[in-house]
Amino acid sequence: MPPTQFTVEEKYTYLNGLGSYHETEAVKGALPVGQNSPQKVAHGLYAEKLSGTAFTAPRHENLQTWMYRIVPSVTHRAFQTSKIELAGYPSNGKPEYIQVPNQLRWRPFETNGDVDFISGLRLVAGAGDATVKTGLAIYIYGAGKDMAKKQAFYSADGDFLIVAQMGTLDIQTEFGRLLVRQGEIAVIPRGIRYRVELPEGASRGYVLELFQGHFQLPELGPIGSNGLANVRDFQVPVAAYEDDQSDWTITVKFGGRLFDAAQDHGPFDVVGWHGNYYPYKYDLGRFNTIGSISYDHPDPSIFTVLTAPSPVTGTAVADFVIFPRDGS
Amino acid sequence: MPPTQFTVEEKYTYLNGLGSYHETEAVKGALPVGQNSPQKVAHGLYAEKLSGTAFTAPRHENLQTWMYRIVPSVTHRAFQTSKIELAGYPSNGKPEYIQVPNQLRWRPFETNGDVDFISGLRLVAGAGDATVKTGLAIYIYGAGKDMAKKQAFYSADGDFLIVAQMGTLDIQTEFGRLLVRQGEIAVIPRGIRYRVELPEGASRGYVLELFQGHFQLPELGPIGSNGLANVRDFQVPVAAYEDDQSDWTITVKFGGRLFDAAQDHGPFDVVGWHGNYYPYKYDLGRFNTIGSISYDHPDPSIFTVLTAPSPVTGTAVADFVIFPRDGS
Amino acid sequence: MPPTQFTVEEKYTYLNGLGSYHETEAVKGALPVGQNSPQKVAHGLYAEKLSGTAFTAPRHENLQTWMYRIVPSVTHRAFQTSKIELAGYPSNGKPEYIQVPNQLRWRPFETNGDVDFISGLRLVAGAGDATVKTGLAIYIYGAGKDMAKKQAFYSADGDFLIVAQMGTLDIQTEFGRLLVRQGEIAVIPRGIRYRVELPEGASRGYVLELFQGHFQLPELGPIGSNGLANVRDFQVPVAAYEDDQSDWTITVKFGGRLFDAAQDHGPFDVVGWHGNYYPYKYDLGRFNTIGSISYDHPDPSIFTVLTAPSPVTGTAVADFVIFPRDGS
Amino acid sequence: MPPTQFTVEEKYTYLNGLGSYHETEAVKGALPVGQNSPQKVAHGLYAEKLSGTAFTAPRHENLQTWMYRIVPSVTHRAFQTSKIELAGYPSNGKPEYIQVPNQLRWRPFETNGDVDFISGLRLVAGAGDATVKTGLAIYIYGAGKDMAKKQAFYSADGDFLIVAQMGTLDIQTEFGRLLVRQGEIAVIPRGIRYRVELPEGASRGYVLELFQGHFQLPELGPIGSNGLANVRDFQVPVAAYEDDQSDWTITVKFGGRLFDAAQDHGPFDVVGWHGNYYPYKYDLGRFNTIGSISYDHPDPSIFTVLTAPSPVTGTAVADFVIFPRDGS
Amino acid sequence: MPPTQFTVEEKYTYLNGLGSYHETEAVKGALPVGQNSPQKVAHGLYAEKLSGTAFTAPRHENLQTWMYRIVPSVTHRAFQTSKIELAGYPSNGKPEYIQVPNQLRWRPFETNGDVDFISGLRLVAGAGDATVKTGLAIYIYGAGKDMAKKQAFYSADGDFLIVAQMGTLDIQTEFGRLLVRQGEIAVIPRGIRYRVELPEGASRGYVLELFQGHFQLPELGPIGSNGLANVRDFQVPVAAYEDDQSDWTITVKFGGRLFDAAQDHGPFDVVGWHGNYYPYKYDLGRFNTIGSISYDHPDPSIFTVLTAPSPVTGTAVADFVIFPRDGS
Amino acid sequence: MPPTQFTVEEKYTYLNGLGSYHETEAVKGALPVGQNSPQKVAHGLYAEKLSGTAFTAPRHENLQTWMYRIVPSVTHRAFQTSKIELAGYPSNGKPEYIQVPNQLRWRPFETNGDVDFISGLRLVAGAGDATVKTGLAIYIYGAGKDMAKKQAFYSADGDFLIVAQMGTLDIQTEFGRLLVRQGEIAVIPRGIRYRVELPEGASRGYVLELFQGHFQLPELGPIGSNGLANVRDFQVPVAAYEDDQSDWTITVKFGGRLFDAAQDHGPFDVVGWHGNYYPYKYDLGRFNTIGSISYDHPDPSIFTVLTAPSPVTGTAVADFVIFPRDGS
Repeated sequence: MPPTQFTVEEKYTYLNGLGSYHETEAVKGALPVGQNSPQKVAHGLYAEKLSGTAFTAPRHENLQTWMYRIVPSVTHRAFQTSKIELAGYPSNGKPEYIQVPNQLRWRPFETNGDVDFISGLRLVAGAGDATVKTGLAIYIYGAGKDMAKKQAFYSADGDFLIVAQMGTLDIQTEFGRLLVRQGEIAVIPRGIRYRVELPEGASRGYVLELFQGHFQLPELGPIGSNGLANVRDFQVPVAAYEDDQSDWTITVKFGGRLFDAAQDHGPFDVVGWHGNYYPYKYDLGRFNTIGSISYDHPDPSIFTVLTAPSPVTGTAVADFVIFPRDGS
Repeated sequence: MPPTQFTVEEKYTYLNGLGSYHETEAVKGALPVGQNSPQKVAHGLYAEKLSGTAFTAPRHENLQTWMYRIVPSVTHRAFQTSKIELAGYPSNGKPEYIQVPNQLRWRPFETNGDVDFISGLRLVAGAGDATVKTGLAIYIYGAGKDMAKKQAFYSADGDFLIVAQMGTLDIQTEFGRLLVRQGEIAVIPRGIRYRVELPEGASRGYVLELFQGHFQLPELGPIGSNGLANVRDFQVPVAAYEDDQSDWTITVKFGGRLFDAAQDHGPFDVVGWHGNYYPYKYDLGRFNTIGSISYDHPDPSIFTVLTAPSPVTGTAVADFVIFPRDGS
Repeated sequence: MPPTQFTVEEKYTYLNGLGSYHETEAVKGALPVGQNSPQKVAHGLYAEKLSGTAFTAPRHENLQTWMYRIVPSVTHRAFQTSKIELAGYPSNGKPEYIQVPNQLRWRPFETNGDVDFISGLRLVAGAGDATVKTGLAIYIYGAGKDMAKKQAFYSADGDFLIVAQMGTLDIQTEFGRLLVRQGEIAVIPRGIRYRVELPEGASRGYVLELFQGHFQLPELGPIGSNGLANVRDFQVPVAAYEDDQSDWTITVKFGGRLFDAAQDHGPFDVVGWHGNYYPYKYDLGRFNTIGSISYDHPDPSIFTVLTAPSPVTGTAVADFVIFPRDGS
Repeated sequence: MPPTQFTVEEKYTYLNGLGSYHETEAVKGALPVGQNSPQKVAHGLYAEKLSGTAFTAPRHENLQTWMYRIVPSVTHRAFQTSKIELAGYPSNGKPEYIQVPNQLRWRPFETNGDVDFISGLRLVAGAGDATVKTGLAIYIYGAGKDMAKKQAFYSADGDFLIVAQMGTLDIQTEFGRLLVRQGEIAVIPRGIRYRVELPEGASRGYVLELFQGHFQLPELGPIGSNGLANVRDFQVPVAAYEDDQSDWTITVKFGGRLFDAAQDHGPFDVVGWHGNYYPYKYDLGRFNTIGSISYDHPDPSIFTVLTAPSPVTGTAVADFVIFPRDGS
Repeated sequence: MPPTQFTVEEKYTYLNGLGSYHETEAVKGALPVGQNSPQKVAHGLYAEKLSGTAFTAPRHENLQTWMYRIVPSVTHRAFQTSKIELAGYPSNGKPEYIQVPNQLRWRPFETNGDVDFISGLRLVAGAGDATVKTGLAIYIYGAGKDMAKKQAFYSADGDFLIVAQMGTLDIQTEFGRLLVRQGEIAVIPRGIRYRVELPEGASRGYVLELFQGHFQLPELGPIGSNGLANVRDFQVPVAAYEDDQSDWTITVKFGGRLFDAAQDHGPFDVVGWHGNYYPYKYDLGRFNTIGSISYDHPDPSIFTVLTAPSPVTGTAVADFVIFPRDGS
Repeated sequence: MPPTQFTVEEKYTYLNGLGSYHETEAVKGALPVGQNSPQKVAHGLYAEKLSGTAFTAPRHENLQTWMYRIVPSVTHRAFQTSKIELAGYPSNGKPEYIQVPNQLRWRPFETNGDVDFISGLRLVAGAGDATVKTGLAIYIYGAGKDMAKKQAFYSADGDFLIVAQMGTLDIQTEFGRLLVRQGEIAVIPRGIRYRVELPEGASRGYVLELFQGHFQLPELGPIGSNGLANVRDFQVPVAAYEDDQSDWTITVKFGGRLFDAAQDHGPFDVVGWHGNYYPYKYDLGRFNTIGSISYDHPDPSIFTVLTAPSPVTGTAVADFVIFPRDGS
């Protein structure tokens, strides 16, 4: 089966709609009809399910995707401690944060030609603990080069919300490709493998890694059914695959530590998928800013793009909030 | 005990804050301290509780007020069918509404010098049934004279949300006095007796009678903790009483029909009260309008002043919504 | 702008996924990008929003669609009482059901060459009241001819769940076309206009009209994230329009009565739409039947295809349940 | 199989615990082990399930019982309009209540030697509508004789909460026997057949028929895990059956009307049952009264024995409240 | 008062029904009637309440039992660090788990004639922290001998779910005796004392210790009111006591550490008890397996026997799931 | 602007009502009308908002106050490690609690003339972690002197519930003054600055510091709408300010460690405020004790004054419970 051949236009084609159940196939017929896991999948593909939540989560919070791939993802050698170091993490993977009452701000940080998107991550703040699925971590990145040709990464600890402050990230994922430009954000949920190139050179930005639940759009209350970030402005990759039988290294962040596993095929071999658990991107310029049109200012929660709810209604684990130019 | 003597300024003094637990006394010491129903209330007053909800409603929805009055409210003769007719109601009190798919609008309606606030009410629309506490009724009023000197009214069927479109209403209630001017609204909850004068002459407007639950401020979602109608801009009367031993008529709307009862004392004899169930008013000019400051329009729910929730989360029995001048 | 020209294959193309936010345009560029209601819509179209729920419904229950059409839907003459009679309804539109404790069953009913899908509806059972949005009605239909060429219908009272027992229904809707064959069901939500032809001749079946809320997939509990009717097996029309400037009649069921309005253009002029409120169909043969694989039988709720929840958790207004051949 | 032979002591033996899952068999082995509906039930019995709620109600509200009986309950002739009249009901079964604002009280009502428990019922008040499962009805009864030897009754409309004010009721039910003495209450849920004798002569009392949901113990809030009516003081019959092949009449209240069906066997042939939907009784003398031990009086809700919750949290369809002697 | 004398058959008699309110007495009259804590309990017993939840938990989650015993349970000397070591725990009782991304499996582990059920426990995995009531721990046990004659154990940290993989456990508890055979599970909730013998010799298996909440049956969703593990197949001990005035040692697991306290009487002196907090067992062979009877496989959550819910609806702290032979 | 000049009587004037939205101004006109943050506040004051919860908390849990002050609170130098040591805390601010199964009780502890309210605090127990907002800490205090003249304290970690066991505390807060006498309690929520004097000499008592949420009144269940601690018996300070331009030290407890910041003005310069987040006090003698008036004792939860709810309904992070003299 030949790999996906894109025209330039097709390469960055997207499906629209955050939370929607999408289906996409790079080869016609890759997706079974009226069934999820037939004994024989078309083209000899393997059916796998990737779960973003408990199977028993309520429908509107349940996140699952069926993937149809060339080689089962479990086909790899054992994970070993990685050679890559995650700046800011101690060897046991459990940072001890020091809380201080003073407000801090970071100087502009440099990009570094020696590091890629992953090795250039630097932990700057956090709370909670990835191993018991509470809290989050905050990183800066300042990458100066592409990730190695045959290396992929995923975090088993949390979702990566990436804020591309400078430069462009070309992110190849198991689900397809995302081009994330300056002023855009991307979310790569827990467990999804990807590889990042820098088509326009050095890139820097922020990452919020969420250990607890997933990002979602905030409830809008009296704002009604549209406004702030709109559902249809979130973009999801179309299926794209490579049939690559060469040696790859998969690096995982697991419990705050990095591990590497070798495998004799590429991870980006998903020919089709359907479901509602996937990576996505959003152009912050599309934010529909709401504000006071009479007097006073609403609270900054009105600029919330994405929120990660806690079990306490109305209190988030994290809110991703922007201050748009046309807002007050 | 001499009746409340107001300076002009005091007469229209208010307590601020919708939903707050207020306490107010027209005579010092009328309210018992650290207790609600002592065997002997100061000044020989009688303690009564007026319930707006089931006793077992959750705290944040529980509405109750303790009143300390000169004569127990139960001291009246039996109710008889009233001489007043409620325009638009059949004799059994159960209107049969005719639903039509065409949009209707009312011509400006006239005020009438022969009718007061109550006899000038005219049912124009509705849904549900007051006797099983569902739905609402909508009235117009066009009053040309004060209510009779010794007559008070209450609805046992629902809360009256009064929109003063033209003219001023001077509303004497068991809880004190409200002056409702053009551009203001007032809410007189179910079971509270009042009498309306027209200090500036003829007055017209709208009434929404809510049979199910009570009005409350809408949840604000991402707007945060301020905005739209603010809690502190709702105004509640201070206690004011008359020690009136003359003959009065109390008219009640009960199951869609009007009844009268005679009593040998005035109903406005509450010397002090404390609680969170009371009438209130709001100046629509204080509405903090929120809207789009970038593109598109939010839904009109963003102009909600008060809402009456149904058991279905996010779906109201009725929303009272305005289109403020400075909104879009 | 020329109307949609389909190949045969395209005519019955569908979008997959119940509850997903879909977007579709019959003419490229009909949908605005990054905005819903621009001052000038492409091709001179008019933006309209069709609401299936309160604006303030929680996100996962909120149903709204933006439509971009040639003529605003409000452009019609006043509604008049329709010439069509709805069998089983009295003239006031409020059936008085007689409850009997005996089990009833219907003999096979005949189709009738004189009636179309709407005029062939016959009310056979029901509960509640459409005018206060409670309960449902059940009809049989036995149509022998197409609806008139220039006539469209919608129910303002409830969603129509149509069970095609015999024959095929070709349903042209504002959102596009649905071909509903024997063994399939379709749901046309409240307020959506459509016209039914019978491409294979006489057709009979059942209709459940739901006055309260909307159908949704049941929560699955321990069954997990797949099973019973799967999200992706529900099919939604792609946008298709006619630019028809001739005279049409729109018939509405409103409060249990039928009304007609004349207009000088066709209603099927929606060139593009996006949202999550739309008609859909489902092939019952795709039902993923779950049952006991050891002993005893589960309750028949395990065969639920769609459910309409009431405010009491776990108790439905109506469940649509099938007894599939391969079930027990 | 010989019928249950009781010693006097055994006849009024009870299982303790409201809401508990009980199992009881009058003949050893009547209940299947590790299974509910085996192909062959012991002793040739038929397995039937009686449902008090939707199958899909949450576990803690789900009410169902498996019954194992000699003849299937469906074996009867068609229901006909009954010869018995239900005092206070019009012929269409839908009372039109007249609401009046005056407080009413009943004179002591007489018992009547010509009527039994059912024919002696007289509707005195109510709200809502049994046919849409809302509200309740209130009756008095003043029975002077036993029900006919071969007659049983059930209400398909609601649960009967019977307050035995004077005299004793010996109630034979499908689930076993309840002896309800003066000062006790009994609840016979919807759909359960029974027959009432008066072992001590004339009897009078009250009945609350609940159309909506079922009675349950109130949540206790800060009172903690014991107090008011305690779970274990509610008593449930043990299985007891008659193998009676003679002619019986079953009378049902259905939609406010009475119907009779003839059958050639007795309805009290349930040899064993297990589940949590059953009749029960409670001795009001066991009520654990809670009150103020410092100052003021709590609201009368503190004397709630049983409550029937509505969809609005904290607001009941009906509360059954007593004023115990040792309360304040 | 002589101790309970069982026939062999009676020794392993059980009450049926998980979650039911049970009452049982080994000596007639041990339980007070219509009261819980009389000043004088029959037979000179002491009334004690054992709480499984906060007093204010909602009724359907509230777990409490009243016990009537010979000597108050508080009559013991101070706890000292125990001589028994809990394999896998550090001296401060707080294991530091090391998370690795590789899948692990245990070789068959040996039983050891030198250890009993408690000293043979070995911690193999875990998450969370018993001292703040989050998470769980997983142990294997491989016991070769009975616990010492006069020694009892309880965990103050969590509920023990014991999976008897090989051999039989005869568990004497404060509530009575449980015989747990191969293929059965038992749950001993937090705070209940017990002693384990091995009537058939060496025994091995697994223990899940749950620090957070308690196990319960999963909600069944569309499966309805029966299926998976049925309520009535869970078995609860009948009261059984020993009047033992000799010296005993009570060992407690508290905050991850073991402590011993000496006392001059046996802990198994509960003559009667009533409530809904108790140990229980379940025969996995009675599991009512549900699965696909058409195509595809449901998620493994369909094999859930017991679940321990977290505050996030649909996400468990732990699910106990089996793969039954007759399942897929 | 001259500082607040109180008569003795006015100094300890209070606003009544816990949870109410209060407004108070020490100088007439300090509060803006119909607006919260005008560009120019009267008297040149600065508007600040103090948030007790997320902006998006539901209305009935949302705690926010607008303060109008002379100098913005942010005007201070950087925080440095404080010279004051918090007894019982290690230098990293994270106590390692040792759990023991024995019951402990404290001997009467001494007051110490060398320490004030803050330096006299001694940590005696706790659970959870302030830095992730879980759990609580318990302190004793035994203060012998006033806090330094120009020093104020606040906890950024939690609310202080202060139980004044002996002696009187005169607490000057940003919101006004509270005089807390023996037998009273006070709550100073997180983030509010205060200074404590001892007008009657040495004082000792207890402090519960709550890291998670805030204290609230318990739901009352069937007790109804009054009882236990009543809303109106909680007392809130009236605004009182000092216009102090001298040097002050602000000490904060942050992440379990103390820090000091210098500033050139006093913190008690709030001239007016409105909102529902504030300190308050309560006289335990006003507790309306409820108990059994028949037999048995309710659980001690019936003596709950204040509760701090956890995400698990009915289970508190902490309950503050008293055993009143007139209770049982």
